[in-house]
Formats: sequence, structure tokens, C-alpha cells
Amino acid sequence: MKVTASLVTIGDELLIGQIVDTNSAYIAKALNRIGVEVQEILSVKDEQASIIEAIERSLSFSPIVIMTGGLGPTKDDITKAALCEYLHCDLVQEPSVLENIKHLFVQRGYKELNNLNQDQALVPQKSMVIQNKLGTAPCLWTEVEGKVLINLPGVPFEMKQLIDHEIIPRLKQTYQQSAIVHHDLLVSGIPESDLAILLEDWENNLPDFIHLAYLPNRASIDLRFSAVGEHREELIKAIEEQIGLFKQVAGQYLVAENSGSIAQIVGEVLNQKDLTIATAESCTGGHIAHLLTSVSGSSAYFKGSVVAYTADVKEKVLNVSPALIEEKTVVSREVAEQMAIGAIAVLGTSIAVSTTGVAGPNKGEDGKDIGTVWVAVTNGQQMLSKTYFYPYLDREDFIKIVSQNALGLVVEFVKSHSL
Amino acid sequence: MKVTASLVTIGDELLIGQIVDTNSAYIAKALNRIGVEVQEILSVKDEQASIIEAIERSLSFSPIVIMTGGLGPTKDDITKAALCEYLHCDLVQEPSVLENIKHLFVQRGYKELNNLNQDQALVPQKSMVIQNKLGTAPCLWTEVEGKVLINLPGVPFEMKQLIDHEIIPRLKQTYQQSAIVHHDLLVSGIPESDLAILLEDWENNLPDFIHLAYLPNRASIDLRFSAVGEHREELIKAIEEQIGLFKQVAGQYLVAENSGSIAQIVGEVLNQKDLTIATAESCTGGHIAHLLTSVSGSSAYFKGSVVAYTADVKEKVLNVSPALIEEKTVVSREVAEQMAIGAIAVLGTSIAVSTTGVAGPNKGEDGKDIGTVWVAVTNGQQMLSKTYFYPYLDREDFIKIVSQNALGLVVEFVKSHSL
Repeated sequence: MKVTASLVTIGDELLIGQIVDTNSAYIAKALNRIGVEVQEILSVKDEQASIIEAIERSLSFSPIVIMTGGLGPTKDDITKAALCEYLHCDLVQEPSVLENIKHLFVQRGYKELNNLNQDQALVPQKSMVIQNKLGTAPCLWTEVEGKVLINLPGVPFEMKQLIDHEIIPRLKQTYQQSAIVHHDLLVSGIPESDLAILLEDWENNLPDFIHLAYLPNRASIDLRFSAVGEHREELIKAIEEQIGLFKQVAGQYLVAENSGSIAQIVGEVLNQKDLTIATAESCTGGHIAHLLTSVSGSSAYFKGSVVAYTADVKEKVLNVSPALIEEKTVVSREVAEQMAIGAIAVLGTSIAVSTTGVAGPNKGEDGKDIGTVWVAVTNGQQMLSKTYFYPYLDREDFIKIVSQNALGLVVEFVKSHSL
Repeated sequence: MKVTASLVTIGDELLIGQIVDTNSAYIAKALNRIGVEVQEILSVKDEQASIIEAIERSLSFSPIVIMTGGLGPTKDDITKAALCEYLHCDLVQEPSVLENIKHLFVQRGYKELNNLNQDQALVPQKSMVIQNKLGTAPCLWTEVEGKVLINLPGVPFEMKQLIDHEIIPRLKQTYQQSAIVHHDLLVSGIPESDLAILLEDWENNLPDFIHLAYLPNRASIDLRFSAVGEHREELIKAIEEQIGLFKQVAGQYLVAENSGSIAQIVGEVLNQKDLTIATAESCTGGHIAHLLTSVSGSSAYFKGSVVAYTADVKEKVLNVSPALIEEKTVVSREVAEQMAIGAIAVLGTSIAVSTTGVAGPNKGEDGKDIGTVWVAVTNGQQMLSKTYFYPYLDREDFIKIVSQNALGLVVEFVKSHSL
């Protein structure tokens, strides 16, 4: 039998769009790993009636309800009051929470506790406390007619620590029954709908316990297999069989398996060939370097970057010729290629990737239209360069998508050249 | 009277945590600007019963329901079928959508349309189509008993273009009645609960139509004012009055007003003094440069960066002395300061900020514990350096929080020195 959970995130800041709800994805991933499926995610205001309705709704669906937010010390934090109203009980002071708060205050070099901090040690009488070592808001675990209602602080690093070390181990004991296995295939070079037609027969014959989803990106498609069953090993085996069949039909479009991010794929292909990489970034402004260094272990292949936002830095640090910039303009194949070559010379790596373009919203100095970009990858001898044009993207998306394309080009370069 | 909207995001990828729902925050912000308050955000599976229940629930709360996702051409996209079931109507082919799809296919250099793409031109008979110029999934606008149900594609850049240019202008005509004004104060140097006590009397006397929220960050607190009423100008005036009163009580803790991000504040303080900036980044791996260049107009003050992930790059590009690294270790005040000085020399800016630390999860070569970092800001003569220790943060949060601290230190440096 499948065990489900429902997530509730509380806070006005979510509903005015000031904060993106990253907590829910983190919790959903953690639950998935122990075989608990998330039924829905609901975000509501700091408002007693909405919070209580969300609790009732979620408990009606799922034996596990995890809520985040609204546990702070200030007036707008009302989750505990709503909880008491729902549970028909009072707030009582919990000495262990008070001890924890005092301890944190000493650690942070603050003076004495004030009344509001003392109030953070008040918890609903029917709730069990799980200490939050990283913050003053306690985690609450409440059993409600055989179901469990869990309240976590909304601060992401506090939530993560509690999920990983307190909540998941406890849930595992009680609820882990079925296993869930996910497997991703990254596919490129075919439109989503053509792929779906190509895969139609195979897809129709997938066993019931394997679900397939298409997640299209700008330049590729993630095919996600999800299998639910009792034995993890059997699920893995069944997915492997299906991937074998998939490869017979559409193997030529397969770029990577279970790759996670494109930055992780770059790490794998570089490690395989024992190569190092540098970036020379203009319009991506350091985002490619950031993506690469977000991968744990990246120091094995990533040495450094030059972010060359001005022509001046391109010339002086990356040794791009001023005459070339004059002749070809800053946003050109030639300048992108010179930047990549310059990065290898300055940073001493096997290969380098470069970007030069206009992210907008204002036109570049050279009059090039917004949305044009050149990307180049080189090992000093061979060169792979490509241009993209994204006039409709806003600044944020432009930087992200160009960075991803650039990393894709790195993979293509490393795979297709003998380095 | 307040007009509310409810948002529904559809897709299994959200519920397994593979994708963070960034669409909802974008839509919520856009609605807020025209005075429409978001009542709740609900994420559900690609499952007919769940989608229909979500529609019913949301329409019961709000006259405007905006849904994203599930409009693609593949088997897991079932939003249109659910919509027909809910509306008791059939799918009919809409020629203008077919034209749009053909046009996009030519643009993308694909061959002929396949059946699945043709099916994307099928829309519920009771829905009105709004063309999606950037993608093959049409936007649907359905009137249901005086309320409106809007379906948008889940691909962020398609959704954004439709929200900005099609949906918001239409909603504005029908629903804009009240105005909403937000104003943020960034406060630092006082614990959240002490601030709340300090502000208690003032907060209790706030007029009913002004709501105050505390949004604590690691090193600062955002105080957010939200005022709802008929006349925008009156709301702005009322908030200004309250900020005047706030300053009398807690003005010494105020860092910035309506600042948006810390990177925007850096831009403002640099522009005020006509300064330029560079970054020299080790453990933050280019993230500070990325934050700075995410701000439109940043090319006025940001010139470039050196990401120096290895000791080698620190020595050769930033001219940090090998003997110093040997003596003090890579993660030290002295190395951070030398990196910042080196960045000014290499990149030719007025000031530079540097970071050197161990993000983990593996220990650094020099044996320093995970979570230690040094940050330095200099103009070549004066220097401001600080160390932080975040042993509990995961890699992602560590990079983000250190980057934000570093930008905070830049603001402190520029404000407290006559440059």
C-alpha cells in the first residue's frame, strides 16, 4: 500500500511572491527516497482559519502532514496558536526548548532572553517537541487519530537539518513499506512530440508499476521513470530492462543517464578524461562557474574563471585583441574564441568555455540586439563555437539558459574530440 | 473589496521535488502589483481527479484561478482532458493554434507536424484561446459562472510572456479595484524578538489597512509593510508616515529601504560614490559575480572577477604570495586580503571583495574545518575583513549565505569609509 504525505507551507511572503517555496521540493525529495509519495503541496497565509482548514484538508488525504513556517517569535507567526485551536489544547512551557534558546543566545553573543524568546518555548500541550539545534523555533510532532502532523521552522537550513536527522529517520521506522525508484534519461535532438510518437508502442507496454514523465527543457527533454513496489532491487532491475528496450528504439537521442544537473555531467566527462576546465564569462557573469562549483568534488577539475564584463578586462586579462573587438564587435564568434583561448593561458587548464552576449534589458554598446550570444569551447587547438538568440527571455532566464547551453557544449566538445 | 486569486500548479515533477515551483511566485508578484491578493497556492499531480478537485476548490475561494502545467503534447499531460470533464464539453480543433504550431516548427527548423502536435491544437469548446507565441501549448481563458479560470503552460519563459503581455492586462481591466503597496525595510544588528519588543507600541498602533511582517534572514531582518486600499497615493503616504515613526524608535538598525536584493543595494551605494567593483572568489565560486550581474544596469559598476578555486590561480593570477599561503593557510585573513588587493590590480576597479573558505562536504586540503570562511573588502588602502563559521550548512546554502554576507560587507565598507 502506498503511503502518502501532504505538505503545507505557511507564510504571507509566499503568497505575495517575495519568497519562492524551495522547502517543499526539499521535503518531497527526502520523502520520496523512503517511499512516501507527496499527494499535494498547499501554501497558505499566516491566518488562523486558513491554517486550520489546511490541516484538516491535508489530514483527510494523508497519514503524514508536514508543515513549515509561522513558528517565529513575532506577531505574524501564528501557527502554534492555530495548532492549539485545532487540537483543542493549551500552550505550555517546555523547559528543554527554553534551555536550547538560552544556549543559542549565548552562542550568538546576545544578551538576556526577552519575553518573545521565552514565548518560543511555549508549545501545544498535545505536541511532542523535537529540538531544533540551529534555531529558536522548536519542531513539533503531533499524533492525531493515528496520523502525524509535523511542524517545522520555515528557515531552510533549520528545516533541512531537522528533515535529514530527525524527521526522516522517525518516519522511516513507521511508514517505510514500499520502495520508490526514479531514473532519469536526458534526451536531446528530437522534438518532444516526435519522441512521444517514436516511443508510443514501448510506452504502452510499460508495466503498471513504472510511470514515465516527459520534462521538456529548452534544448533537451528529461524522461523520468518512477517505479513503486515492495523491493527496491526488483524495481531497479525492471527499470534497467525498460531502458534497454528504450535504447533499441531511441538510443541515438540519449545524452546522459541519471545525470542530475548538466554541471554534474560536465564533471563526469571531465573526470573520465582527466581534464581540467576554466570559464571566461561575459554575459553569464560568473553563473557558469557557479554551476560548476555547486557540484561537490568540483575542485578536482575546476580551476578558476575570469568574468570579463568589460571590453577592457577581455583585452587586459584574457588577451583579446582590441583590433578584433573593433572589427568584429564584442558579441562575435571571434571574440568568444579568443576569450576561451585566453582563459586557458591565464588559468592553465586543459579546456575552457567562454560566453559573450547581450542579456538586456538594455541594448549593448555595440548596438547588437538583446538576446544574441556566442559560446566557444576549446582546448587551445580544436574549437567548438555556437551562437544562440533568445530575444524574449528576461535577464535571469537568459543567464540561466545560456549557462546551461554552454555546459552542454562542453559535454559535446569533450565527447566528440579525442583529448 | 479585495479581489483574490488562487493558483494551481500541475505536475508530478513538483511533488517528487525534482522541480521547484518558481512560477507561482512570479504570478503572485504580478497579481499583487494590480491589487489582486493570492489566497493560496496548490500543487497537484498529473491526475484527473486531483486536477478537477483543485479547480473546484480554487473557484470556491476566488474569482480568478490561474493554473500552470500539464498542457504539453505527451501522455502525462492531461490538464485539457480534466478541464473538459469539469466543464462538461468536448475538445475541438482551433485553427489559429494549429497555425501557431506550424509557424513555430518552421522557426525551429523541424520537419512536418506529427499527430501529437496536431492534438495540441485541440482545446475545450468552452475555452477561449490566447496564443502562446513562444510555445506549442496554447493558453486557455475560460469563464465559469462569472469567474475566470486561466490555464498557462508550465514552461517558465512561456508563462512569463503570457502573464506579462496577455493575462495581467486583461485582468486589470476587469478586476483592478483596490491598490496594494509594499515597502520593505532591511534591518540589521538586533535579534528579531528584541526588535519586535522595541517596536511593540508602534506596531500596535499601525492603522488597520497596513500589515507588518518580519522576514528574518541569517544576518538581517526584512520588515515588510503591505497596505491595501483604494488610492495608491494615500497608501504610499500612510506607509511613509509609519516609516517616519519607525525611524524614531529603531532608526539606528535600518540598513536600507525598498532595497530588493543585497546586490541591488550594492549597486546603489557604488553608483552614489561612482565606484567600480571586482570580485576574487574562492569558495563562492563565482556566485557573488553572478548576484552582482543579475542586476540590470550592473555593467555601470561591475567590471569583472577572478574565480580562483586553486592555490595556483590565487598565486599566478591574483599575485598572492606562496609563502603567505604556506604560513597562514589558504583560509586566512591574510590570503583573503591579498586576493582582494590582487583583484583590484588585475581588474582595475575602485574596490574588490574576496572570499576564501571551505564549503564542504569534504575537508579542505589544509585541514581547516568545513564551514570556515574569510571575506575581505578593500580599495587598495583601507581594508575590512571578517570571518564566518557555518559548519551546519550544506554546500548550496553555504555558498549563498557567504555571498550575501560578502555583499553586506561591501555595503558596510562603502558606507563607512570616505572613498
